[in-house]
Amino acid sequence: MLVVDGLGGAPRPDTGKSELETACLPNLDRLAKVSTCGLTTPVVTGVTPGSGPGHMALFGYDPLKYHIGRGVLEALGIDVPLDKGNIALRGNLCTVDSEGLLIDRRAGRISTAESQPLVKRLNEIELPEVALSVYPVQDYRFVLVLRGDGLQSDVTETDPQDIGVPPLKASALAHAALKTAEAVNAFADAARDMLRHRDTANMVLLRGISELPSLPDFSNTYKLQSACVAAYPMYRGLANLVGMQVLPTGATFDQELDTLEDGFSEHDFFFLHYKPADTAGEDGDFEAKVARLEELDAAIPRLMDIGPDVLVVAGDHSTPAVMSSHSWHPVPLMIHSELTIGEGGTEFTERQCATGSIGRITATSVMMLALAHAGKLSKFGP
Amino acid sequence: MLVVDGLGGAPRPDTGKSELETACLPNLDRLAKVSTCGLTTPVVTGVTPGSGPGHMALFGYDPLKYHIGRGVLEALGIDVPLDKGNIALRGNLCTVDSEGLLIDRRAGRISTAESQPLVKRLNEIELPEVALSVYPVQDYRFVLVLRGDGLQSDVTETDPQDIGVPPLKASALAHAALKTAEAVNAFADAARDMLRHRDTANMVLLRGISELPSLPDFSNTYKLQSACVAAYPMYRGLANLVGMQVLPTGATFDQELDTLEDGFSEHDFFFLHYKPADTAGEDGDFEAKVARLEELDAAIPRLMDIGPDVLVVAGDHSTPAVMSSHSWHPVPLMIHSELTIGEGGTEFTERQCATGSIGRITATSVMMLALAHAGKLSKFGP
Repeated sequence: MLVVDGLGGAPRPDTGKSELETACLPNLDRLAKVSTCGLTTPVVTGVTPGSGPGHMALFGYDPLKYHIGRGVLEALGIDVPLDKGNIALRGNLCTVDSEGLLIDRRAGRISTAESQPLVKRLNEIELPEVALSVYPVQDYRFVLVLRGDGLQSDVTETDPQDIGVPPLKASALAHAALKTAEAVNAFADAARDMLRHRDTANMVLLRGISELPSLPDFSNTYKLQSACVAAYPMYRGLANLVGMQVLPTGATFDQELDTLEDGFSEHDFFFLHYKPADTAGEDGDFEAKVARLEELDAAIPRLMDIGPDVLVVAGDHSTPAVMSSHSWHPVPLMIHSELTIGEGGTEFTERQCATGSIGRITATSVMMLALAHAGKLSKFGP
Repeated sequence: MLVVDGLGGAPRPDTGKSELETACLPNLDRLAKVSTCGLTTPVVTGVTPGSGPGHMALFGYDPLKYHIGRGVLEALGIDVPLDKGNIALRGNLCTVDSEGLLIDRRAGRISTAESQPLVKRLNEIELPEVALSVYPVQDYRFVLVLRGDGLQSDVTETDPQDIGVPPLKASALAHAALKTAEAVNAFADAARDMLRHRDTANMVLLRGISELPSLPDFSNTYKLQSACVAAYPMYRGLANLVGMQVLPTGATFDQELDTLEDGFSEHDFFFLHYKPADTAGEDGDFEAKVARLEELDAAIPRLMDIGPDVLVVAGDHSTPAVMSSHSWHPVPLMIHSELTIGEGGTEFTERQCATGSIGRITATSVMMLALAHAGKLSKFGP
């Protein structure tokens, strides 16, 4: 399963063509002709998913049921080890005035160079009964992990999502979360004291207070020896969370293909992640997204030479460059195997996939369709 | 949201073209080219909806969950005021023989001129503890409303849906409905006595015994200042039921557009209803339906000039003139906004919409998609 992050796009007004339609994709187009195509709805119609729900759905997990908290996802994104019962929080450095009222929730988007020593100091905060670690992410963002007995994540955020007001106190929403709420507030108080001498980046906001969810195991559920090949930590983290074996790999897609090739005989399912298309889309760089799709296309022959029985090309969500963000648009899907009805149009695009025989399905159905094309599902009923 | 009642159609055998394909619709076609298109399933595949479920679904209410009874809908259709706890029934004048067996469930489709004085007399019936009002509808049809304490609509109908048998006695299906069942039977008995001297239209059948449902408020749920502009009472009644503000308007679509224009700055959602296409379809008049669609098309430039950020063109159901009735056929859908993928075909027709990127969605998803195109939905999950 090749997941092209942010695969779908939207037409540029001057040409009326989307990124996929603009790009020259001879290999994907050739594949589409002999594959079965369609569109996926990542969550529900009209809803724009984050990367977490987008991938969970492709793995077959209903994202409305299996929620990955922002703190956990952020921790996974920087390869922070989390154990059951650990609490992960997404932190912002922010700026408050002399009365403690918020002036800037992101501390002027302070640079990583400036924020790293501050995060390092925050890591020195000590709390009774709870061990904590603070990890820098980027710019004003950090991750706080609380470790200890009796922690539970049912705690409200301290970010009021507004300025001119003080940060909120965290409150426990369940009795079992009292200790966690106390620890969150104690950390925020200690951070305020520690940063008090500064004019900017002199306070913290804590959000997405969450812990590892309980998830059915991907490999057991589908009876697959599954593996993840992904250059970015967050996707490796998600794959690890659902129970895939995460294979060490490099930073480029070529290196991912090396890893796939090397491990190919030892697994019967691979989640292979291609990130650059999404990054270009998020940057609002239409030309770059086209270029990243063309680079992917150039790698398709090598991928096919490795010899998958079934190839799924899917996206976790659309990222139209014209929107510079994720979107709700349905996402192109293509499945190829010996059992494929090669009904496809002549191109792998949003419009052609809309006419494919898969139709429009919810992304949680993709794994079932992949398993069907692999001949791995039994007949239902006599 | 422009709801074109009975929008979808079916091909006339001699031309192979549907009403939308036959009509000359330059404005809707031009819009389709720069809009995103698809098909809606009003309830579930293969099921023909009434106007109630068709509209409820477009407003986002699962019509299988939120049921509007026939009595309530009929009352809304003639602007009868209903309060919580009132019981509304759809009545037929019918003909029974000397032994009280049904000869004609619709009293020979007696004319309104002949039925109105009878309905007026039925209105004089008095029952202990329950106030009642009888309102003429058309031909053999009337509405009965029961008002009083302790009424509940869980009562069986008196129409046996057969002839040669007597009308049924109403029975309470719940203890709380005993008083209502008694009142229904007492009314039917009194009607029989009152009409006994007549050869035809000498009895009544009572159906669709229902009360106002409890519905989530449309405006609160979607955080919209919503308004309804509809010439026909039933659609105003439905809109009022879900919590839209109903704007007074005239009988023509031009007058509806006047109302829309006048109120445009005071609301951020409008349900605008266009009835004539359905009426022509129900009459089995293919040419008339084509003409009504062309008249709608001519009004589209004025509608666009009013300047909606998002325009949804949807139908509550299809009404193919070749069937002279509502049908189960999926209904064309078009959404236009600045964020629209202009993927459309070159025409706004059933066949072109089938290839649109929205694909085929349940009508209850239309509001979500409209809100997405209005930029009113947050991202789901990190």
